[in-house]
Amino acid sequence: MNTFGHLFRLTTFGESHGAAIGGVIDGCPSNLKLDFDFIDSELLRRKTAQSSTSFQRKEPDQIEWLSGLLDGVTLGTPIAFMVRNEDAKSADYEALKDVYRPSHADFTYEQKYAIRDWRGGGRASARTTLPIVVAGAIAKQILKGKDIQVAAKVTFMGDAEQARKEGDTVGGIVECRIVGVPAGLGEPMFGKFSAELAHAMFSLPAVKGFEIGDGFALAKMKGSEANDTFINTDAGRRTEDVGRGTEDEGLRDGGRRTEDIGRGVTTATNHSGGIQGGITNGNDVVFRVAFKPIPSIAKPQQTVNRAGETCTIAIEGRHDVCALPRAVVMVEAMAALVTVDMELLRR
Amino acid sequence: MNTFGHLFRLTTFGESHGAAIGGVIDGCPSNLKLDFDFIDSELLRRKTAQSSTSFQRKEPDQIEWLSGLLDGVTLGTPIAFMVRNEDAKSADYEALKDVYRPSHADFTYEQKYAIRDWRGGGRASARTTLPIVVAGAIAKQILKGKDIQVAAKVTFMGDAEQARKEGDTVGGIVECRIVGVPAGLGEPMFGKFSAELAHAMFSLPAVKGFEIGDGFALAKMKGSEANDTFINTDAGRRTEDVGRGTEDEGLRDGGRRTEDIGRGVTTATNHSGGIQGGITNGNDVVFRVAFKPIPSIAKPQQTVNRAGETCTIAIEGRHDVCALPRAVVMVEAMAALVTVDMELLRR
Amino acid sequence: MNTFGHLFRLTTFGESHGAAIGGVIDGCPSNLKLDFDFIDSELLRRKTAQSSTSFQRKEPDQIEWLSGLLDGVTLGTPIAFMVRNEDAKSADYEALKDVYRPSHADFTYEQKYAIRDWRGGGRASARTTLPIVVAGAIAKQILKGKDIQVAAKVTFMGDAEQARKEGDTVGGIVECRIVGVPAGLGEPMFGKFSAELAHAMFSLPAVKGFEIGDGFALAKMKGSEANDTFINTDAGRRTEDVGRGTEDEGLRDGGRRTEDIGRGVTTATNHSGGIQGGITNGNDVVFRVAFKPIPSIAKPQQTVNRAGETCTIAIEGRHDVCALPRAVVMVEAMAALVTVDMELLRR
Amino acid sequence: MNTFGHLFRLTTFGESHGAAIGGVIDGCPSNLKLDFDFIDSELLRRKTAQSSTSFQRKEPDQIEWLSGLLDGVTLGTPIAFMVRNEDAKSADYEALKDVYRPSHADFTYEQKYAIRDWRGGGRASARTTLPIVVAGAIAKQILKGKDIQVAAKVTFMGDAEQARKEGDTVGGIVECRIVGVPAGLGEPMFGKFSAELAHAMFSLPAVKGFEIGDGFALAKMKGSEANDTFINTDAGRRTEDVGRGTEDEGLRDGGRRTEDIGRGVTTATNHSGGIQGGITNGNDVVFRVAFKPIPSIAKPQQTVNRAGETCTIAIEGRHDVCALPRAVVMVEAMAALVTVDMELLRR
Repeated sequence: MNTFGHLFRLTTFGESHGAAIGGVIDGCPSNLKLDFDFIDSELLRRKTAQSSTSFQRKEPDQIEWLSGLLDGVTLGTPIAFMVRNEDAKSADYEALKDVYRPSHADFTYEQKYAIRDWRGGGRASARTTLPIVVAGAIAKQILKGKDIQVAAKVTFMGDAEQARKEGDTVGGIVECRIVGVPAGLGEPMFGKFSAELAHAMFSLPAVKGFEIGDGFALAKMKGSEANDTFINTDAGRRTEDVGRGTEDEGLRDGGRRTEDIGRGVTTATNHSGGIQGGITNGNDVVFRVAFKPIPSIAKPQQTVNRAGETCTIAIEGRHDVCALPRAVVMVEAMAALVTVDMELLRR
Repeated sequence: MNTFGHLFRLTTFGESHGAAIGGVIDGCPSNLKLDFDFIDSELLRRKTAQSSTSFQRKEPDQIEWLSGLLDGVTLGTPIAFMVRNEDAKSADYEALKDVYRPSHADFTYEQKYAIRDWRGGGRASARTTLPIVVAGAIAKQILKGKDIQVAAKVTFMGDAEQARKEGDTVGGIVECRIVGVPAGLGEPMFGKFSAELAHAMFSLPAVKGFEIGDGFALAKMKGSEANDTFINTDAGRRTEDVGRGTEDEGLRDGGRRTEDIGRGVTTATNHSGGIQGGITNGNDVVFRVAFKPIPSIAKPQQTVNRAGETCTIAIEGRHDVCALPRAVVMVEAMAALVTVDMELLRR
Repeated sequence: MNTFGHLFRLTTFGESHGAAIGGVIDGCPSNLKLDFDFIDSELLRRKTAQSSTSFQRKEPDQIEWLSGLLDGVTLGTPIAFMVRNEDAKSADYEALKDVYRPSHADFTYEQKYAIRDWRGGGRASARTTLPIVVAGAIAKQILKGKDIQVAAKVTFMGDAEQARKEGDTVGGIVECRIVGVPAGLGEPMFGKFSAELAHAMFSLPAVKGFEIGDGFALAKMKGSEANDTFINTDAGRRTEDVGRGTEDEGLRDGGRRTEDIGRGVTTATNHSGGIQGGITNGNDVVFRVAFKPIPSIAKPQQTVNRAGETCTIAIEGRHDVCALPRAVVMVEAMAALVTVDMELLRR
Repeated sequence: MNTFGHLFRLTTFGESHGAAIGGVIDGCPSNLKLDFDFIDSELLRRKTAQSSTSFQRKEPDQIEWLSGLLDGVTLGTPIAFMVRNEDAKSADYEALKDVYRPSHADFTYEQKYAIRDWRGGGRASARTTLPIVVAGAIAKQILKGKDIQVAAKVTFMGDAEQARKEGDTVGGIVECRIVGVPAGLGEPMFGKFSAELAHAMFSLPAVKGFEIGDGFALAKMKGSEANDTFINTDAGRRTEDVGRGTEDEGLRDGGRRTEDIGRGVTTATNHSGGIQGGITNGNDVVFRVAFKPIPSIAKPQQTVNRAGETCTIAIEGRHDVCALPRAVVMVEAMAALVTVDMELLRR
């Protein structure tokens, strides 16, 4: 359950204050020359954020590449990598060892495992998104070779400066767009592109909502408003194609080449967010992800400790006011993982 | 990709106007006496709906049980079942054979497979949810034995009567609540209860949005508003337990039984929708699903045919004005499948 | 656990005397025109056997195709099929209901499920190989399009005529050869072509041994005897290729096309059975499967019943003296499933 | 494809001369205090061998534990570990860079990936069994808590001293016995205990044969010789149990407790190797694995290089004469992984 993907598979490991955090990518195509600078720049996007929203951990996030590469080129074998947790200050968390922080995973992990790593949030820490960003950077590089881009941005964020003053935190919304994705990606029934994306996004910490295209707004539209009309941007060229030679292997469908079916067809509007029946239609895939506010707030909160006693906590230390700026690259990374995986599944 | 679940697995098959539609459930516990009346009543919920929103297919939806049972008791082996498609009127669809209906899966399926079953929507038809409802009914029966209930309802629906007059359709929102789910279900990272639910819901036709707890509204809250304070509803009893005998196998944690950790702890509010860090906290799991309007509208629409030519269609025939009333039992079914699966995964 | 394969997946269902036996194939390429006559002929190979070894059930083994096809052409969606169990004579088994037949699965199934379908062996019956043969026939058809043939034969069988007289049964060995399989199939580590084949063969009833190439005999050879020398059957042509244009996409490796690497290279001997490091080398894949004698013998045997009491049984009825003749097509079928699956995994 | 197991899952990574070799164990139960001394002693068994058969790499095989542990106790989260490759002498392999060593994976990897790590065998090196042994040691510790032991031994090995003198190598056979395994493990059809074991063993390098119980010898027996008679070693006690109270939850089957069914029943002989119908019967699981001779021989061999030219090689360097002594712990490790996994799958 710490593995994501079908053919392009990422297994992650690591707790916030354990020895290291990392991942294993299985199924990466061979002979890909990795762009390490790009990967580092993506990690920096995860770490750096506006001063208004984030404190920064000081660890260098230096990736050690453990396997799967020969002179920086992928071998087709598992690519393992890790980053050591050098700046962990577990002592900060000692006071919280026996307390269930509200809306954190302390209580639920303990219910599940009857043990929990209280140091820095353990496995539930947002630091566990680091390997996702690394794998996402590799996925983006694969997609770049296919002219597919994944780009997200914050479309809503609460008033961070005000929240900081109040010892509070804010949430927000990230919108992501996958441009250049070909029609025909995704699998019917339980492997829909939309379902894989939803699964991917809910794998990120603090995610509480996900919508594709016009999403929840579609629930309030009429069919005539919500439907995306098909248009043909390539009408002239298509006509000539009909009647081309019939000897070729690629032919079916009355003398037209299979690959010509649907060429130039797209939708005039994109209420569907590029996905119909769970399969991409060639238009941009567009979706939005809702992040709740970071639950670690400086304001005093009432809660319960492991002995079942009521107590009050005020979470001090270097905590972000808002996860959103950092979340952008995480959303992109998970979207890139899904897209590469669906691309590989396509035959 | 036509299989859902990890240990309780449903594989479905069938096109709308093919010979039959059905499923295979693998991993169902043995020695469960199936309540066939309940299963039939669930199927009826899928089929029957307010006269204002749905036309009804006339097939009896008579389930044939093919395997996995001895005198109505589960053997632990795969439970296969099917319903024949007897009322299919494929001729109705002949006119649409070469046309891409807007916001339907006609175009995307053809892009993916270079062939498509044009009869009644083929594999993309909502009729493919029938096996989901059957499997969900069995899952519900398993959950009933654990005092877990799954109940959904429509919380928003467009004005169906008005839409019908206009040859149009409407969408809406279904809210679902899983009551009695124990704390500790779900797997960290890529197997979160929330992610599995999101995946499950986006497997249903026409779903475009999903949110857990307060969902998108959480994006606009502050941490102090969004956090769910832990409380102890069982404080008195817990105190006595501390200090109980230490010999037992179940003991750890300073003389308290493992199973006592967290007993009586719950959250005062439920903005989180019963899930924190991807794992259930014992409070009700609450989520909402947004359905777009049914894309088959009587109003004329412009589109493109397989030859790439622009054309106009008006979709006649027995089509619902709104999928919502029927969708309630589908949402419940998928939620039940996820819950049973996560329950079996719990060790 | 009733599903086999990664991309070409077969899920089977059914007990020997239940309503039906069948399967669902997920991942079959679209636009394949099924050769139903061939599928029927394969089923006949499973059923018919020399009169010396087999009794025949009288059911027609009429396949009902339930989904996944349009006018006999695959849609890319799940292909479900079934055969009804019409000739089941459960009464024959009533006497064995509470007895554990030696070396049958009666006892182990009951230990696993605390219930067991005693009618005709239930899920452990050799009749459950029927869907395997159907799926294998489709897999063979896919392989035929790639010039790959799978052919097995009995290389050893005990003296059936003598055994029959004695109320006894015999076992034997089946050898299978996959011809035309390209080099490069199979995945390293835990997805080796050999491991997948081994898994496949041990999924068949009564299989107790499996070896690739020279198998157990290799354990007694020296390296110099066991090694397969590489030779080049295409030396002349290769030389010309070196130095061909370097602009092409397919190029790497000093001006030679990727697809030319290893062209014409094969092994002079085939002790390895066509697989090295778990990956095919282009030579024939050759393996052998050992089948134990059918455990249902007419001779009286001592055993224990469900009450734990010692008793004696003599198994009457229409039982084969030897499974081998029927096993040939089953071995081929599983080998074909593996080969198609590995082919689809290859990128 | 670098992951093994269903619930207890091992993902491995690493090439022989890459930065490190290691693994990630997902699904290990929480609250297990790891016995690191035992793990190290198992690694030593993999490394040390009789001087007659093996050269030894000098690296310390020092395991670095990267995640999943708190004070040496498992958290339930992924356990990642690695061993650095410090003694790698890649220069030794430079001469073999462009040559396909007979019966090695050089050619097949290159056919698959169009690139290959020529340093020390890369991903196909026997060094990749190191993480298997580590994970197997943890699995054994879990099994120990359930009174299950896994023990293998060499039952046949060629004449190593003679082979060494001749610049040759030898193979052999390892027999393994799993003692204390309860009845009822394994899944029918495609998840048979025997099939999982076969898959596991063929995942080890140089394995060419596998048989359960009497294996290939069973093919030559009659049913009356091969069948394992059931006996009841607990007949007296059982009788008393019948008629015990019927109120209990655990009851079925006419007043007998479910857990009493089959108590004391075992087989008088064990030709089946403890597995019938793919499911364990409570007797020892016994199987044998055939290893081919190590293909790296000092004797000159003819082969082909990447340019397709015939050439002669003599493989120098620190190579074992026989893999068998080292293979014993690998066989045990894979068997332990399978047994834990099947135990967790049992409900």
